[in-house]
Amino acid sequence: MSQRRITRRGALGAAATGAGAAALPASAAARGRKHRRRSLSADVVVVGAGLAGLTTARVLRARGHSVYVLEARNRVGGRTWTKKVRGVPVDFGGQWIGPGQTRLAALAKAVGVPTFKTYNTGLNVYQRLGTLKTYSGAIPPASPAAIGDIATALAKLDQMAGEVPLATPWTAPRAREWDGQTLETWKLANMTTDEGRLLLDLGIEAVFAGEPRDVSLLHVLFYIHSAGSFENLINTEGGAQESRFVGGSQTVSKRVAAKLGHRVLLDTPVRRIVQGRRGVTVESDRAVVHARYCVVTAPPALAARIQYDPILPAARDQLTQRMPMGSVLKVHALYDRPFWRDDGRTGQATSDTGPVKVTYDNSPPNGNTGVLIGFIEGEEARRWGPRPLAQRRAAVIAQFAKWFGPAAGHPRAYVEQNWMEEEWSRGCYGAWAPPGVLLDYGAALRKPVGRIHWAGTETATQWCGYMDGAVRSGERVAAEVGRLL
Amino acid sequence: MSQRRITRRGALGAAATGAGAAALPASAAARGRKHRRRSLSADVVVVGAGLAGLTTARVLRARGHSVYVLEARNRVGGRTWTKKVRGVPVDFGGQWIGPGQTRLAALAKAVGVPTFKTYNTGLNVYQRLGTLKTYSGAIPPASPAAIGDIATALAKLDQMAGEVPLATPWTAPRAREWDGQTLETWKLANMTTDEGRLLLDLGIEAVFAGEPRDVSLLHVLFYIHSAGSFENLINTEGGAQESRFVGGSQTVSKRVAAKLGHRVLLDTPVRRIVQGRRGVTVESDRAVVHARYCVVTAPPALAARIQYDPILPAARDQLTQRMPMGSVLKVHALYDRPFWRDDGRTGQATSDTGPVKVTYDNSPPNGNTGVLIGFIEGEEARRWGPRPLAQRRAAVIAQFAKWFGPAAGHPRAYVEQNWMEEEWSRGCYGAWAPPGVLLDYGAALRKPVGRIHWAGTETATQWCGYMDGAVRSGERVAAEVGRLL
Repeated sequence: MSQRRITRRGALGAAATGAGAAALPASAAARGRKHRRRSLSADVVVVGAGLAGLTTARVLRARGHSVYVLEARNRVGGRTWTKKVRGVPVDFGGQWIGPGQTRLAALAKAVGVPTFKTYNTGLNVYQRLGTLKTYSGAIPPASPAAIGDIATALAKLDQMAGEVPLATPWTAPRAREWDGQTLETWKLANMTTDEGRLLLDLGIEAVFAGEPRDVSLLHVLFYIHSAGSFENLINTEGGAQESRFVGGSQTVSKRVAAKLGHRVLLDTPVRRIVQGRRGVTVESDRAVVHARYCVVTAPPALAARIQYDPILPAARDQLTQRMPMGSVLKVHALYDRPFWRDDGRTGQATSDTGPVKVTYDNSPPNGNTGVLIGFIEGEEARRWGPRPLAQRRAAVIAQFAKWFGPAAGHPRAYVEQNWMEEEWSRGCYGAWAPPGVLLDYGAALRKPVGRIHWAGTETATQWCGYMDGAVRSGERVAAEVGRLL
Repeated sequence: MSQRRITRRGALGAAATGAGAAALPASAAARGRKHRRRSLSADVVVVGAGLAGLTTARVLRARGHSVYVLEARNRVGGRTWTKKVRGVPVDFGGQWIGPGQTRLAALAKAVGVPTFKTYNTGLNVYQRLGTLKTYSGAIPPASPAAIGDIATALAKLDQMAGEVPLATPWTAPRAREWDGQTLETWKLANMTTDEGRLLLDLGIEAVFAGEPRDVSLLHVLFYIHSAGSFENLINTEGGAQESRFVGGSQTVSKRVAAKLGHRVLLDTPVRRIVQGRRGVTVESDRAVVHARYCVVTAPPALAARIQYDPILPAARDQLTQRMPMGSVLKVHALYDRPFWRDDGRTGQATSDTGPVKVTYDNSPPNGNTGVLIGFIEGEEARRWGPRPLAQRRAAVIAQFAKWFGPAAGHPRAYVEQNWMEEEWSRGCYGAWAPPGVLLDYGAALRKPVGRIHWAGTETATQWCGYMDGAVRSGERVAAEVGRLL
């Protein structure tokens, strides 16, 4: 039963749940919902069965506490989601693991999910002003002035990042100055070449799925520090894109969920959390869970859509109005073989024009199918997302053909995931802070509100925004709640 | 009946609704809700009975269409709220009307609510670096250099604002540059004196209930243009604070609602909006309304908390993650008489230190009671809001005594309204756009989604953020929907 529950039920994805309900007259839907509602109780009820929520439950269970995990989607894994396309597991969401991401590594090891290196042999492609160049290694063949410009900028950012305390970024000595400006402002004041600025833009877009104008400089510095360095964030070899999971990243969540069994409830969106003196009641469409504590793992913008009774204090509520989700579509083209490897290409491209500006070879470990992935991020996602699939597909495939040859123009399959349209994420990769938010609201990010504790990768101090951060946040909150039980 | 419905039911205010429900076990509350739900139908269902929603309904009714207005609070008026304190009507929310606010003026006239001038005779108080000065007129007695600095800055801002198209700010010739930075960044680059910068800070805090670091320069320019000039925003004489409503500003909404009668449903928070091919169904705790069109007047951050089926498109959803509500507490001290008038004081003070940085004489027209109001805004609101009432009261009263003499230290009553803690506003005065938002999401602000149309002062192109903007947005959306009926 529990195994069946945690299996994907079709290709329509999470949004299908809500859409299905629309077919019923409202009153019937309400009645149906009501009749199905089970009453459950546990020490802790966890909202969200992504890596943060599953880790929370796993740790609490190991300490002997009872838990339920309520998940809105019809699957576990949150922003990781592996779907088979023509028999090949394709990661529609978060997928990589790199050095220093030790808590994710430990979890994957514990549940027996091995990793393999991201394909990174050969030459990369760099497109700028309509011209293609190839190069090896991590540094694109930009002009020497631009290389110097970006190198200086990254060194400055890394150095400043080191001055931002991870648990309390708002206490950095220059926090007011840094949280008063966008990264765009800092870039214009500190970089001198168009091409150097382009390279920074590409890095920011790839990391945040947003533009330098969207994010606070202080938030970017915190994020860099949280990962160790800017290069850790953007590199393949030695960086956050170094390795992948055999069978897809969602496998980790599936394995953890399988062990939790009936304690993970799918298709169970939480609508309301009621706190009383002796406990907390979490109401979903399918179940009502009474518990001593509640852990909410949804990112701030989605946690805001739960009804709280009593209402949340101003600091927490206004925080949730101020940390938007990024903007990204992930696109995948499948080929019979990773033919670019024969041409001595890595499958990695970087481009100054969209829709796709970054690609990777995402073929399975045995390389018996070729998979190219591309990211449509930030402004490109906002512009291209609303357009018809056929138009977007044509534009993406034309880019792939330009970068990897005519064979790339004829994929066997093209599939994409628009995370902005996914009801229970409403954006990826994660949430960021615009200017002023960390300074005045940062302290509300992890501060419990009565019996409600907060987790999710957005609350992590190390590898914030990454799968590893999600695992760390789950471990942190499990310890936090565990001390109270 | 309708008269009774629109009467306030007690001093606990809107938040009491949610809190009351908490006392019931969750399942009983759900059952009770379900049993009470009425099924209604109309041409148009309006979400929110503030000035925008009531105007929408009023105009549609006048054209012969049927409407229902669903209001979450136990009162109409939205962010205007007049409560009697010791027999004196005290405006807890929006209260002023000024030149150019012609649609609000017309509405008030139509329902017979007269205005009177804000008391503005005598000297104002200016506090900086611990020193008090008095002055008359609109310009504080700052140093000549600071006066020149702020005058130049406001002239520049006004000139730039004129280049921002009101309906499409993101098409301004320099939109990318202006939406790439905070107002703080612009201030530091364009102003040279500490005191001049302070005066700009005070203006921004008073207008947005936020800090210069919180808001996009482009948004500020749009907002200035929307009001005509920066001085229009901040001035009493000839500006947005020129006049008040006899009996309080909420009287306008109450009168409009009284004419709508049973069509306004209070205590009716909307939880879900289901769109089909032939109509829209709006589900609240108390009623289910079937209609051809729906108008949502809640500001973006609160509209985000309604469940939509099907889910909203990415552009609209991500917009609602990106326009936070301002941060403000409004405090009121009541005295036997407006004694400061005897001393030749206006009751207006401006201060470089908080909690209160701006005050006004808010006495009733006959002046038989003295009322001083103060605003705790932006960072001060975020800092002072969570503190105990007694501590805040003591700090405020000490400020009032410093500015208006020992008599101000002994009010007959002290009352305050924390708009951040009000469940159905979660901030005031309105929403703003951080950098990057207007550029990529501005077009989603008024664009209908199927049968759902959007109103509220945040959608206004003239006097955005003001009561007048709310009325204008209601008139605009009523015309928009009226064309479809």
